[in-house]
Amino acid sequence: MERSTSVSKRENNHQVYDTEAINGVDNNDKDMKGERGVQDLNTAEPPESVERIFEVLEVPSWKQQLTVRAFIISFILSILFTFIVMKLNLTTGIIPSLNISAGLLGFFFVKTWTKFLDKSGLLRQPFTRQENTVIQTCVVASSGIAFSGGFGSYLFGMSETIAKQATEANDPSNIKNPALGWMIGFLFIVSFLGLFSVLPLRKIMILDFKLVYPSGTATAYLINSFHTPRGAKLAKKQVKTLGKFFSFSFLWSFFQWFFTGGDQCGFTAFPSLGLKAYQNRFYFDFSALYVGVGMICPYLVNISLLVGAILSWGIMWPLIGNQKGNWYSAEFKQSSLHGLQGYRVFIGIAMILGDGLYNFVKVLKHTLTGLYRDFFVKGSQPTIPITGQTPQEKIKSFDDQRRTQLFLRDDIPSCFPVVFYCGIAVISTAVLPHIFPQLRWYYIAVMYAIAPVLAFCNAYGCGLTDWSLASTYGKLAIFSIGAWAGASQGGVLAGLAACGVMMNIVSTASDLMQDFKTGYMTLSSPKSMFVSQVIGTAMGCVISPCVFWIFVNAFKDLGTDGSEYPAPYAIIYRSMSILGVKGFGSLPKHCLTLCYVFFAGAMLVNAVRDLVGPRVAKYIPIPMAMAIPFYIGPYFAIDMCVGSFILFVWQKLNRAKADAFGPAVASGLICGDGLWTLPSSILALAGVNPPICMKFLSRKTNIMVDGFLNS
Amino acid sequence: MERSTSVSKRENNHQVYDTEAINGVDNNDKDMKGERGVQDLNTAEPPESVERIFEVLEVPSWKQQLTVRAFIISFILSILFTFIVMKLNLTTGIIPSLNISAGLLGFFFVKTWTKFLDKSGLLRQPFTRQENTVIQTCVVASSGIAFSGGFGSYLFGMSETIAKQATEANDPSNIKNPALGWMIGFLFIVSFLGLFSVLPLRKIMILDFKLVYPSGTATAYLINSFHTPRGAKLAKKQVKTLGKFFSFSFLWSFFQWFFTGGDQCGFTAFPSLGLKAYQNRFYFDFSALYVGVGMICPYLVNISLLVGAILSWGIMWPLIGNQKGNWYSAEFKQSSLHGLQGYRVFIGIAMILGDGLYNFVKVLKHTLTGLYRDFFVKGSQPTIPITGQTPQEKIKSFDDQRRTQLFLRDDIPSCFPVVFYCGIAVISTAVLPHIFPQLRWYYIAVMYAIAPVLAFCNAYGCGLTDWSLASTYGKLAIFSIGAWAGASQGGVLAGLAACGVMMNIVSTASDLMQDFKTGYMTLSSPKSMFVSQVIGTAMGCVISPCVFWIFVNAFKDLGTDGSEYPAPYAIIYRSMSILGVKGFGSLPKHCLTLCYVFFAGAMLVNAVRDLVGPRVAKYIPIPMAMAIPFYIGPYFAIDMCVGSFILFVWQKLNRAKADAFGPAVASGLICGDGLWTLPSSILALAGVNPPICMKFLSRKTNIMVDGFLNS
Repeated sequence: MERSTSVSKRENNHQVYDTEAINGVDNNDKDMKGERGVQDLNTAEPPESVERIFEVLEVPSWKQQLTVRAFIISFILSILFTFIVMKLNLTTGIIPSLNISAGLLGFFFVKTWTKFLDKSGLLRQPFTRQENTVIQTCVVASSGIAFSGGFGSYLFGMSETIAKQATEANDPSNIKNPALGWMIGFLFIVSFLGLFSVLPLRKIMILDFKLVYPSGTATAYLINSFHTPRGAKLAKKQVKTLGKFFSFSFLWSFFQWFFTGGDQCGFTAFPSLGLKAYQNRFYFDFSALYVGVGMICPYLVNISLLVGAILSWGIMWPLIGNQKGNWYSAEFKQSSLHGLQGYRVFIGIAMILGDGLYNFVKVLKHTLTGLYRDFFVKGSQPTIPITGQTPQEKIKSFDDQRRTQLFLRDDIPSCFPVVFYCGIAVISTAVLPHIFPQLRWYYIAVMYAIAPVLAFCNAYGCGLTDWSLASTYGKLAIFSIGAWAGASQGGVLAGLAACGVMMNIVSTASDLMQDFKTGYMTLSSPKSMFVSQVIGTAMGCVISPCVFWIFVNAFKDLGTDGSEYPAPYAIIYRSMSILGVKGFGSLPKHCLTLCYVFFAGAMLVNAVRDLVGPRVAKYIPIPMAMAIPFYIGPYFAIDMCVGSFILFVWQKLNRAKADAFGPAVASGLICGDGLWTLPSSILALAGVNPPICMKFLSRKTNIMVDGFLNS
Repeated sequence: MERSTSVSKRENNHQVYDTEAINGVDNNDKDMKGERGVQDLNTAEPPESVERIFEVLEVPSWKQQLTVRAFIISFILSILFTFIVMKLNLTTGIIPSLNISAGLLGFFFVKTWTKFLDKSGLLRQPFTRQENTVIQTCVVASSGIAFSGGFGSYLFGMSETIAKQATEANDPSNIKNPALGWMIGFLFIVSFLGLFSVLPLRKIMILDFKLVYPSGTATAYLINSFHTPRGAKLAKKQVKTLGKFFSFSFLWSFFQWFFTGGDQCGFTAFPSLGLKAYQNRFYFDFSALYVGVGMICPYLVNISLLVGAILSWGIMWPLIGNQKGNWYSAEFKQSSLHGLQGYRVFIGIAMILGDGLYNFVKVLKHTLTGLYRDFFVKGSQPTIPITGQTPQEKIKSFDDQRRTQLFLRDDIPSCFPVVFYCGIAVISTAVLPHIFPQLRWYYIAVMYAIAPVLAFCNAYGCGLTDWSLASTYGKLAIFSIGAWAGASQGGVLAGLAACGVMMNIVSTASDLMQDFKTGYMTLSSPKSMFVSQVIGTAMGCVISPCVFWIFVNAFKDLGTDGSEYPAPYAIIYRSMSILGVKGFGSLPKHCLTLCYVFFAGAMLVNAVRDLVGPRVAKYIPIPMAMAIPFYIGPYFAIDMCVGSFILFVWQKLNRAKADAFGPAVASGLICGDGLWTLPSSILALAGVNPPICMKFLSRKTNIMVDGFLNS
């Protein structure tokens, strides 16, 4: 089990997507029942829409949303969160998602400040939800760099301290010790590309695909609830429901914490479906967060995840595992990419890439058509729905109408990101080889050519399932660039540097799109979101290396095994790179063949989904969602299906109530668990460990353990 | 921890009591709010009363309730249950309560049978709920003997096999090997006394004291729900609620089972309040059963339990524990009555006896007054309420009126049990010394003189809190008679035999009263209940020794340590008796003094409760309820308080709904858990062990264990 990796935990940057568009579930429902369109929206929707309630409040212009106080607060919170993330990077390597905490703390700081000003009569500008969203976006962007900067993984993996711990490739050409200058430079060069790469796709992702981005949606829900004007009855009830489930989820996480005093302890290691199933990661892990995510995600996504989980962990991995010693050497560790883990990672990526590429091409076609119209046929529709929407689809709820209107108000011209992306890419291609001579300019050029596709894939997958697989794409880069460079030419360092480039791009891309979703739901301008993200990223590029520098200088034994700061993932990333330089030939048997099969399969399934139309497509799983559990394991898919099942039963019992309160319950569950990460991180920093370990042993092992304890 | 003893588990013969009478909570409520009496009953009560629904059905006469088919089914079920109990006696010693299973299986057997007859047109008498209750009563009485007969404890403890395992007192005068003849004789002589001893008190316990007997109430609820005539809307909903919570509770117990593969494993060992609290047995053990019991019990009982738990396990035992090596030798085992365990058992008993004696005297006074009136002032009220009922109290609900009317219809003259008790006591006193020469006739005479008080105490305590403390009274007998007999005159055997006499009396007494409660609520005649109990007891007196005899002959290594049937409690009981003969002087320091203090305290508190009147009394804890956790520990009190709290919140949110559905929920929780004992026992018999152990280790221990497992 390598569940508790910075990888999978960070791949917690939760998000999903709406029923319509992609799978056409709702449309179809309406189709089948004839003229239900309008009626349906009226009954299924809560009697009071969120934006009707907020209508009394004026939406500030995008410039007004970017206040100085917001960035001051963001800066303070960024430093706090960077310290937390950095320490976790260097101790356990498990990085929780801090979105919720950022939103919440931002609210309390500014609220206190404005209340104070208000009382002294000095308040000029009231605190709005848009400003709140700006803070949240800025802090997430900034503290995200502390993760994607790889201070606990690839970047620190280049250092001499780590290199000495490996037996191979510890020659000077494969070593680069951390120094403040080049780290800041490196981050500045690579961190903005991700933002520009997916910026033009925001309308397609948010408006056409209607991706859900569960964490982003939940954060928006929370921010909206903080700022709800008084007097709205249903809204008040919803806020109350949110608060109730928020508290429950927070307290439940708190309670769980006490029982996690060790590896594989606590509810997250609960073999609720039996020990055998647990070994294949089939278990319900009692995570309120994923149950909430499952409630927000459409049924098809949850089912797809489960189908993928059964296909991979239920059938394929056990079968491949039987070929141990035959298809791959039995000597490899569990986590070695040359063993079973290799199949998991690469087949999963192949499937994601297949799906991603298919959709990217489709989107590209439509975007180009759109651009063409923009230039030559003025005044036409800005974007074109990509999957068979029926005419009813256009009858939008008031919320959707208002949000779409404001989302489109502050338009960013399409040429702007294209120009910037190309510009930065050129500069970066020229500068990066000066920082890492081992990384040839043509490696970088190729990466930048492919990066937008991968960034799109990650943002799209994250929107579907709430998992950002940044470090998985990073691994892909280690392997491909490492293999290309080869062992002789300092390939190990080239691989690690490539990993950094790739991780920064895909990670910021999904963060940005998630923040756009939050912005969309809080009527924050995309322009202000983007600016905030850029400022936050810039802050992060300075703060993170500085904080890391403090750690490096304060703790001389940083990165050595057994010390207070062992930085466990630094050595893991370096090892991966050492293996990577041996090339794709070192992949286990048939792995590449299987990758081709699944890559083609993902494209095929998508093509079939498009061909058969939404009525049948809603029964065909989405390859992107199926691929996520390939690597991570089925447990979160089970959590999400539980959430889905709860919502399903609720809807059967009382449709109106479920529709009105479902999102509040889900957001409460997500946010409560999310907030707990903050105190739990602080407890970890303070060295307060949970007192009890809830352990699960087979009866036989238990007899042995009892014997040992009684002796 | 010696939680999993036949003692505490058997002391699971669940039951409670109604708000009125004893503590006058409801009366008082009405008092304070003036003229609410009638109104209150109308609003607080469910719109359709149970007996209104059943009014369409004729209540059969008590003779009609006792059908031949009922006793045939009872006989078959008795054999089945006796085998189950016997095997558990001889393996783990943990005996679950089988009430619910008996009621349920009885229903399904007779229902199938009558349906079959109905279809073939041969059905003469329809299956009534009274008949169902008769079966349940008979089976419980019969399989109860398998427990109170002591085949896994005192009776088998007399044998040579067990005697050889102890270092002391294994001379022939202290040995009596099991033989079919004397065992059946012994059981017949002692098992009926308990029934007659509390028979005259049934009206006081059920009608005046309104004791709840939670398990009895839940069983009645279940039986009523099976037989509810069609068409009643609310009743249908209640049955549905019952079914829902029944399934939940059953499945929850089933789920829990998987994680109990070892000692101190599973949810029943969940240190939900921390390890330190767990060591003092303060934890919530996730038992649906006790949560349900807590929902049926009035708040005052639950609070009393908690107060008692905090007083004993929170304050007194830790303080006394600090005197280890000073007040008592540090060498004694945890379970030794000469150590801390001695304080727990004897102080608890002292308090129970104090409360019991006070109430017994009070009841006796009223009974004698009543008898006096019966004889001299014909036509007066049959019984007198013993605590300050207000006039409103007499405005009874329709259910109460109807049930009381039928409960009083088949009257059993008061002289009948008195005559029988005395008769059997005389015979028994004469015959018992022939079976056990070590047990002098005057020991027996004294025991029989005291027994009714103890039987009353147990039936009363059981009615309050659902715990039958039969084996605790047994221990008292071991100690007192053993000490009286002394070591030289075969006192060990005398102690064990006295334990048998006492256990049989008090255990059957509480069983009978519980069945009266079930009968009261199902309109079954007390006469038919009593006859069924007598027949069941007679069956048990034959079946149990026979089944034991089969075991003895089939398994030659019965009772030897490490064998398949180690009978762990046989040696424990013998050891207690060996210690007992050393007399009360061997009790730990100050134990006797403390016993006096608590005995007097219990009486004082009761006197105060009576003096101040119900308005203040409802804030004064009941000593009887306080004493139960003294020995058993606070965990079940916490479960019950959780149940109480849930009901409290529910009532605050929606009083009408909580009142209408609360008992259904509680009964569902109790019965579902109760039924699971049957399959779990069968699994144990079949040698199917739970696969997983959910273990709770402190962080330090966990590091050791991980080290051990990885080595």
